[in-house]
Parts: sequence; C-alpha cells; structure tokens
Amino acid sequence: MITTQKKAAGKSRLSLARYFPILDWGARYNRDILTSDLVAALIVTIMLIPQSLAYALLAGLPAQVGLYASILPILAYAIFGTSSTLAVGPVAVISLMTAAAAGQVAAQGSPEYIAAALILALLSGAILMVMGLLKLGFLANLLSHPVVSGFITASGIIIATSQLKHILGISASGESMPRLLNTLYANILDLNVTTLIIGVASMAFLFWVRKGLKPLLIGLGLSHRPADLIAKAGPVVAVIISILAVVILDLAEYGVKTVGIIPTSLPPISAPMFDAQLWQELAIPALLISIIGFVESVSVAQTLAAKRRQRIDPDQELIGLGSANLAAAFSGGYPVTGGFARSVVNFDAGAETPAAGAFTAVGIALAALFLTPFLASLPIAVLAATIIVAVLSLVDLKTPFIIWRYSKSDFSAMTATILITLILGVESGVIAGVLLSLALFLWRSSRPHAAVVGRVPGTEHFRNIERHKVITLPHLLMIRIDESLTYLNARWLEEYVLEKIAGRDELRHVVLMCSAINAIDASALESLEAINHRLSDAGITLHLSEVKGPVMDRLKRSTFLDDLTGDIFLSQDKAFADLAVRTEDGDSPQQTGDIWQARGLI
Amino acid sequence: MITTQKKAAGKSRLSLARYFPILDWGARYNRDILTSDLVAALIVTIMLIPQSLAYALLAGLPAQVGLYASILPILAYAIFGTSSTLAVGPVAVISLMTAAAAGQVAAQGSPEYIAAALILALLSGAILMVMGLLKLGFLANLLSHPVVSGFITASGIIIATSQLKHILGISASGESMPRLLNTLYANILDLNVTTLIIGVASMAFLFWVRKGLKPLLIGLGLSHRPADLIAKAGPVVAVIISILAVVILDLAEYGVKTVGIIPTSLPPISAPMFDAQLWQELAIPALLISIIGFVESVSVAQTLAAKRRQRIDPDQELIGLGSANLAAAFSGGYPVTGGFARSVVNFDAGAETPAAGAFTAVGIALAALFLTPFLASLPIAVLAATIIVAVLSLVDLKTPFIIWRYSKSDFSAMTATILITLILGVESGVIAGVLLSLALFLWRSSRPHAAVVGRVPGTEHFRNIERHKVITLPHLLMIRIDESLTYLNARWLEEYVLEKIAGRDELRHVVLMCSAINAIDASALESLEAINHRLSDAGITLHLSEVKGPVMDRLKRSTFLDDLTGDIFLSQDKAFADLAVRTEDGDSPQQTGDIWQARGLI
Repeated sequence: MITTQKKAAGKSRLSLARYFPILDWGARYNRDILTSDLVAALIVTIMLIPQSLAYALLAGLPAQVGLYASILPILAYAIFGTSSTLAVGPVAVISLMTAAAAGQVAAQGSPEYIAAALILALLSGAILMVMGLLKLGFLANLLSHPVVSGFITASGIIIATSQLKHILGISASGESMPRLLNTLYANILDLNVTTLIIGVASMAFLFWVRKGLKPLLIGLGLSHRPADLIAKAGPVVAVIISILAVVILDLAEYGVKTVGIIPTSLPPISAPMFDAQLWQELAIPALLISIIGFVESVSVAQTLAAKRRQRIDPDQELIGLGSANLAAAFSGGYPVTGGFARSVVNFDAGAETPAAGAFTAVGIALAALFLTPFLASLPIAVLAATIIVAVLSLVDLKTPFIIWRYSKSDFSAMTATILITLILGVESGVIAGVLLSLALFLWRSSRPHAAVVGRVPGTEHFRNIERHKVITLPHLLMIRIDESLTYLNARWLEEYVLEKIAGRDELRHVVLMCSAINAIDASALESLEAINHRLSDAGITLHLSEVKGPVMDRLKRSTFLDDLTGDIFLSQDKAFADLAVRTEDGDSPQQTGDIWQARGLI
Repeated sequence: MITTQKKAAGKSRLSLARYFPILDWGARYNRDILTSDLVAALIVTIMLIPQSLAYALLAGLPAQVGLYASILPILAYAIFGTSSTLAVGPVAVISLMTAAAAGQVAAQGSPEYIAAALILALLSGAILMVMGLLKLGFLANLLSHPVVSGFITASGIIIATSQLKHILGISASGESMPRLLNTLYANILDLNVTTLIIGVASMAFLFWVRKGLKPLLIGLGLSHRPADLIAKAGPVVAVIISILAVVILDLAEYGVKTVGIIPTSLPPISAPMFDAQLWQELAIPALLISIIGFVESVSVAQTLAAKRRQRIDPDQELIGLGSANLAAAFSGGYPVTGGFARSVVNFDAGAETPAAGAFTAVGIALAALFLTPFLASLPIAVLAATIIVAVLSLVDLKTPFIIWRYSKSDFSAMTATILITLILGVESGVIAGVLLSLALFLWRSSRPHAAVVGRVPGTEHFRNIERHKVITLPHLLMIRIDESLTYLNARWLEEYVLEKIAGRDELRHVVLMCSAINAIDASALESLEAINHRLSDAGITLHLSEVKGPVMDRLKRSTFLDDLTGDIFLSQDKAFADLAVRTEDGDSPQQTGDIWQARGLI
C-alpha cells in the first residue's frame, strides 16, 4: 500500500500526502490490518521494555528516559515516516554517541547531563528536518559502507566494554577504549561477587536464548516464526527472574545495584533549555548523531520495504526521523532512530502499517504508568548483560577480511575508522572515516584510467598499446579516457597528454577517444581548450572521437568546437582511417610503409 | 632537454636527478645556452625591479623585502624546479593573501608583521615540500577552474581598489571591499592633489605602454618580439621619470610619499621566529597560499613547457616551489610562486634553462646593493599605478558569461567565490569556493544518470524508454547505469532499483547494463549484494550485462558472483534474447504475444 501512495505522491509532488504519508494509509485502514498491527505491537512492546531501560543506562540517563524516548517519537514517525514497519526509538550506537557528547559538557547524573541529551535530540531533529526539506539526504552518502561498518564494529566493542563495569559491580568511565580499560583496571579490586554472578548468569542465559532456544522450540514442534518471536522475548524472562531473585533473596544487601525507583508517569512535556554556548558545543555531535542515525535507519527501512516490494522515500524519511527526534526533545527523551532488531521483530510479527508503531507507543506508555514500580528491583547487571549480548552481534570481524581482498583502499578507510573510534572515541572515528573515504575518492577521481591505444590488426577495435600487439603510427597518438572529465581530473588530463607528446617530434595528430566520458564540466572544458591550444602551439592537431550525445550537446553551448583544430569522428575507426593518411604536409598521403600498412587495414 | 631528463627520471625513479633536475641540464650546459640565458636574465631583471618593490608594497612590507624575495628563491627553484622558464618571485595575488594573513596577527609596519610574513613563507615552503614528497599534488585539484578564475578576478578588484589610497595620497585599509571602500570614503577629503596627478599620469602612461607602445614600435619597423619586450620595460621608464621629477621638483615638499631609504645590502640570512601560537594561527592561511600559489605556478609552467613540447613534473614542482619559499623564509623575503608575467617575459626573451633564473637573481642582488639609493625618491603612487595596471588584466568579466552558458552549477561556484572573496576577503573566498565545488561534485556524483532501456525494434540497440519507442516486456526490467559505482551513488542505486520494481507484480528479471561502469568500490559492491538479496526476497532474479574486463576481474575477488541469482551476459542483446523467454514458471517459454514479438526480433 505504500507503493500506491508513493506512486500518487510521485505524480503530484505538491499533494499533502507527500509530507503526511498517514493520510494515505489511514484512508484504507480496516479491521484486518488493525488485528495484525495490534498483535505486532504487543510483541514489540514486550521486547522494548527491557531494551529501552538498557539503552538509557548506556546513554548514562535515568531508566525512565528510555521509556519516554519510545512513546512520542514512535507516534511522530507514524505520521511522517514512509516505512510501514520501521520501529523508532533508542538504539545502542546512538545511545553511546549521546553519552560521549553529553559527557563532554556535563557530569553523568547531573541535571545538565539530562538537559544536554534533550538538546542533542532537539538539534538532531532540527538537522534531520532541514536536510529533509532541502532534500540533502545525499549527504549521508559521505559515509561509505566500510566506514559505517567499521564504526559500528568499533562502537560495539566500546559499548560491550563499557558495560563490563556493571557486570563487575565497579565504576569505570570514558568513551574510548584506552580510558575505559584504564578505569576498569584501576577499580578491578572493588568487584562485587554477587553482582558478577548475576551478570554472568544473565549473559549466559541470554546467549543461550539467542542461539539455543529457537532450535529447541522448533524441535518441540513450533514453527519458525513463533519460535523466533518467543526467543526475542528472552530478555523479559531474565528481567522477571532477576527482579524476583533480588526481592526474595534481598540481594541489595549484598551490594547488587538496581534500577531504583522510577517515577510512574507519562512523558513530561517540556521544552529543551536554550543556551547558545551549549547548543554550539553540541552542534557537531548532533550532526554526527543525525547522519549515523539516518544511515542506519534508512538501510533497515530499505531492507524491509524491499521484502514487500514497497519503497521508502529517503528525503521524507529525514522528515520522519526529524519529527521523531523533535518529539523526543519535547517529551523528556533523547536522540532516537530506526532500530534494526525492533524493526525486524515488528516486521516478522506482521505489522502492516505505522499504526503498529502507534499501538506500541500506547503499550510503552501503559508500562511507564503501571509497570515501573516492579522494575525498581531490576539489577543493573541484567540490563548490562542485555546490552552486551545485543551489541556483540554488531561486532563484525569478517567484513574487514572480505574488503581486504576486494579493495585495499576501502580496507584502509575501514581499519582507520575502527582504530580511531576505539582509540579516540566515536566522534573522531566518524569524522576520520568520512574524511578518509573522501580523500581516497578524490584521489582516485583525480587519476582516472586512460590508455594510449592502437588498432588491433584486422579489426575495428582499439586497445591499450601496453597490453596488446596493435598498430600505431608515429604521426598519430590515440588516447582513450575511461572516466568522465571533471575538475578533479582536468589537470591530470593536461599532464597526461603533455607527457605523451613530450619528445615525439614526428607527432602531428592527437585523438581523444571519448567513449567512456559521460560528462565534461567547465574545468575540464577549459583543460581541453588549453590542451587544444598547447598542441596547436606545438604544431599538433587535436581530434575527438566517439563523443556521447549529451556531452556533444553541451559542448555545442561552448566555443570549444569552433576552436578545435581537428575534427570530431563518429568512431575511432573512422578517425584512424582518416588521420593515418594525413601527415605533415597537409592532407596529401605520404606513401611510407607504415601508412600503407595502416591503409591496407582500413 | 627537460624531456630527456624526465624520461630518464621515469625509468629510474630513485635517480638523484629525479629530485635535482639541475644535475641533468647542468651537464649539458654550453656557451650558446649561456648567451641566451644571460640576455633573458638581463631583460627580466629590468622588469622585476619595479615589480618586486610594488608587490612588497601590496603585501604591506618594506620595499626591499620584494627584492630579497626575488634572489634566493629563484636560485632554489633553479636547483629543484622542473620548468626551464618559470620565473619565481613575489606575485600580486600571493602578496594580497600575505597582507590579509599577516594583518590578522600584527599591525602593518610593525616588526611582528614582517616576522609573520617570514613565518608564512616558512610554513608555505614546508607544506609544499611535504606535499611534494608525499605526492599530494592532486590536492590542488580541489580548486576547480571556475573557482580559481573567480578568485583571481575578485582578488584583482580588491588589489586595484586597495592601491587607490596611494594614488589619492590618503590612508585606507582592509582586505575586503566593504572595509576598503569604507575607509577610502572616510578619508577621501585628505586627498593630495600632487600625488593624484603623479598617480593618474603614471597609470595613463602605463596603460598606453601596454596597449599603444607595441603597435607603435612595430609600426616603426621593429619586429614583434623586441617590440613586446621593450613595452614590458615601460614601468622602468615610469620609475626613472618619476624619480627625476621628485628630485628636481622637490615633490616631497608637496606631500608626495616616496619609498624612502632602502638599506643597501644583500638579503639578511636569518631564521624565522618560532612561536607555536603564531604558527598555529598562520597555518591555514599558509596552506591556502601554498595551494593557490601552486595552482597558478603549475598552469603557467605547463603552458610554457607545452610550447616547446617539454613537460613539467607537478610533484617535483611542489618541491621546487617549497624550496623557493623556504629560501624566502631564511633570507628576509615573503611567500613567492611562479609568476605569469615574468615567466612569459623570460620565455620570450629566450631563456633556455633555469640558469637564466640564477642570473636574474644575481641581477636583483646587484640592484639591491647598488641601485637602492636611487629608489629612495620613487613615489609610492607610481608603484601603485604599476600594480593597478598589472592586476586589472587579471580581472576577467567575460568568463562568468561563458560558464553560465555551459554549466549553471560551475557558474554558481564561480559567482559565490567572487562575491564571498569581495565581501569577506580572500581566505573565506578560497575556502567557500573549494567547499562549494566539492559539494556540487558530490551532489552530481551521488545522482548519476541512469535509464530504463528497451530494445529498438529491428536492431541490437537498447535505448531509454522515455525517449525512444522501444520494446519492453512486463517480466523483464533493463536498467543502464551511466557512471562508475562508488560509495557516493551506492545508496542512490539501491533506491533507484527499488523505485523501478515497486508495484510491478509481473516482474521476474532485472538486468543491470554495465557498459559505462569503469569501477565498483566496496560500498557499491555491498549495495549490489543488497539489491541482489532484496530482489531475491521479492522473487526477482538479478542479471548483469556488458561488464568491463577490469570490473569483472575485481568482482571475481568477491563472493558477489557466487551469490548473484542470475547470469552475466556478454551483451545486452544476449540478455534480452535469453530472458525474454524465461518467465514465471522456470525456463519454459510462454507463448504470449509480447514474447513472440520479442523472439521474432531476436
């Protein structure tokens, strides 16, 4: 149904449904869809309660903030988002980035820290919204796959390490590995054995749920989907058992830290604080959070949409995610985005429209109102175990090897991102990855592939003289360029042609074979003009061959074709045939052996 | 002869001559070359004396600094540079940038200001040197032609305006138009009539020399080249006449400002001050000076080298220019680069090797020792007139119109550079131009051209279905991509394919026609894998056609070809012929009208 809507939107870009996808699916809502959405919402709600608490903990925020961030943001996305199944809320990597950013301006636990998280949500929401309205979604392309993959892997390692303190019952801090390990090491002797037992047991249980429970359930006769969904509810079981253990065995006496009293209330509606200095300090982190969140969310949404042959609109997704973050900022939350695990559960549980998300929001709101008293005795070590088990699946050590085989430069960008993220922290990691990808791309763009070509004897084909036995003529140089000409390689082209003509005193004609040139920008045009001029000064004529239609149309809007000393040939073969007999003294053929040979083959 | 040297260097990149081109041409030096070089040096020296003084004035530095910057830097370039005719020294745009940068950290006329100019030369030399050793010359590509052209035009306007104060005999300051005009306007009533007369007369004379003298000399029977060289000496005549006027008429009494006493000495050898804070503040300006200087110098050197079918080595040029700037830093100079006017004069006067530059250096050194007493009475208004007449030739108001016709995006980058340079100053102008060019390039790269194609009836050609009447089949979608696949357009590709399959329930096969794809990076490979996977989930098979050899070689190093659900076809025609008859239920042809039609045309 999203499909139909997008088609309609495509026809009339000004229609209201373009910016409010809800108008479209809302009109076709019926009882069957309602049932599917309600079932999905119930399952997602059960899964989200422990996850929301855990990610708030990871972000260094009070547990209830995680719940708040899962209520209004979901509603906002349901109105503005284009994916029918994306589930928006707190996610691991964004929680880590929030902790890193807020930790730079305030101490964890202080009111300023919570205020900083709200401001991050606000700025991030505004940035996403503006990018969406200006259709700047393409900026997210600056994050290459290897960089994102390396960043997620490094973040997973940092997150897992950062949660070790809760498993050990000690204190530690820092958003980079050296600091984390340092503080963990310094406090290792304070470890609390009871906490450690709870933590390790939870981790073991959760790993088993993840790996062993589903096969067991299938062995017991359940079909694939329900087995999968029950396995996803594993953390809820760990939560219930550990709460009972704390209450019954009075484990707080043994130094086991628990979540503590959570206020029973709906999200507080309030505006984030305005503080120009603070906003400025948080602007760059907010930008990074926005872009990482957007990239992750869009790839999840696209994967799910493709399964149903639907599509999402990335520019409208920016607006959807922007509105979700603004909603988080005004309802006591923190930055959110579309999460992978929850979206897949939502999809598998049969959600059909964004209404499933709205029902999930209601479910979490009810939990915030009625379940929180029971959560007070939940050990923090169990939440930490939930996080560790979840994020270790993000750590991907196979991809670097695959990329190593395919592309050394992509591998270097990925490794640099991993190392810099681990050593210097998440922000430096993302920035370094973006800059390195860009530098490598610009470097490659600045030296495209080109070859001096000659004619393959007996054919109309022209190949690289260094790789094939081909016919060349001393007075004729043929160069094939395998890339569009832009300002990045314009200067390279000048150097390349100059290098190839240097010292060739017999040379009279140069042909640029343009079959792979899809575009020529103004800088490259100027370089072509310079080449034409310089060759002319040296008594050499410049010709082009196999110029594509759109490129030719554009060249006609310049004076280049008037100034060009030579001709434009429809095919390289025609260029060769014609120029082979045009030597020094005008157009009269010189009957040298070389040329006879060439003519014989024409 | 540079040619031979470069060829030799090409064979053995480790040879000493690679880094010391002087070893090569020095070995073949003889009396004939000596005579040519000496004549050229004499002519260039005469031209350089007033020019060096004028540019030092423009940079806000004492007059002798201009002379110092024309001695050792030329010698350094003669040793390390690869152009046989490039003349290195102070140039207008770099002088303006020096004034802007030094003016930010110290007051003109103070010792700190002179120290800042030396530090700029040192940092700029170090940056160029490092870029050369790391072969980072390609970074200069980030400056597109329209941006450089816009920047030079705007700089020319600023420089001409900044010199008006000397013509009017008033004080004014600022490195952007609003500030300049503001201070000019505020002090206009202080204007000195005698100075104005001298300034306007000099400008009129210099314009006449530039436009009218050469035709006159040719009319008197001189041939083209000597007429041109004599016209280039015009400023020297203005200098001599104005000195005589000041001395004879005692114009200093009338408030005419003169250059004043210049120390008679060789360049002072001394190290630039080390001050971490100051170095840091000047690092970005020094980087911009390096890059602008390099771009200008290389384009001059290339133009001249091409005329003699020689070539220059841009990476070695970085080392040559770097050594020239380091020499300037240690001999009381300021940032230098290869200048257009002086290099052309050197070339036209017959310079054959860098030794001509060395002789010029000796000439300027002699001038610094013996001519400076006579220059004390030179009116500053005459130097300002020299600058104005020289830089107005940099102002190019025709190019924007040409670029407007050719490319709106290049035009916008150029206009933005001009406006920002004029309003906010040179540094902001360069940075804005680079960022804007890059943004436009990335934007274009992120949405390449692609088309759904169909078969032109009765041919083997496949064309855009929106532009041509072609045959398509409901179960077969053929997409031609007209660009290499990189991380910048990988996500676009996913969206594009998703958009094209959305809602097409009969679709069974997608063919990507790869004839224009020159490379596929790791991100794009992952996107292709995602597309393959998503199409597979939707029951659609993905095929490729016309994959180029190098792209195929690389794909073989990944698992993509194993995972690909469909086939790789050598030609789009074969893909169409084969897939036309592969419909829903396996490979058995369904004899519908559509397919018969297709088969009939195979």
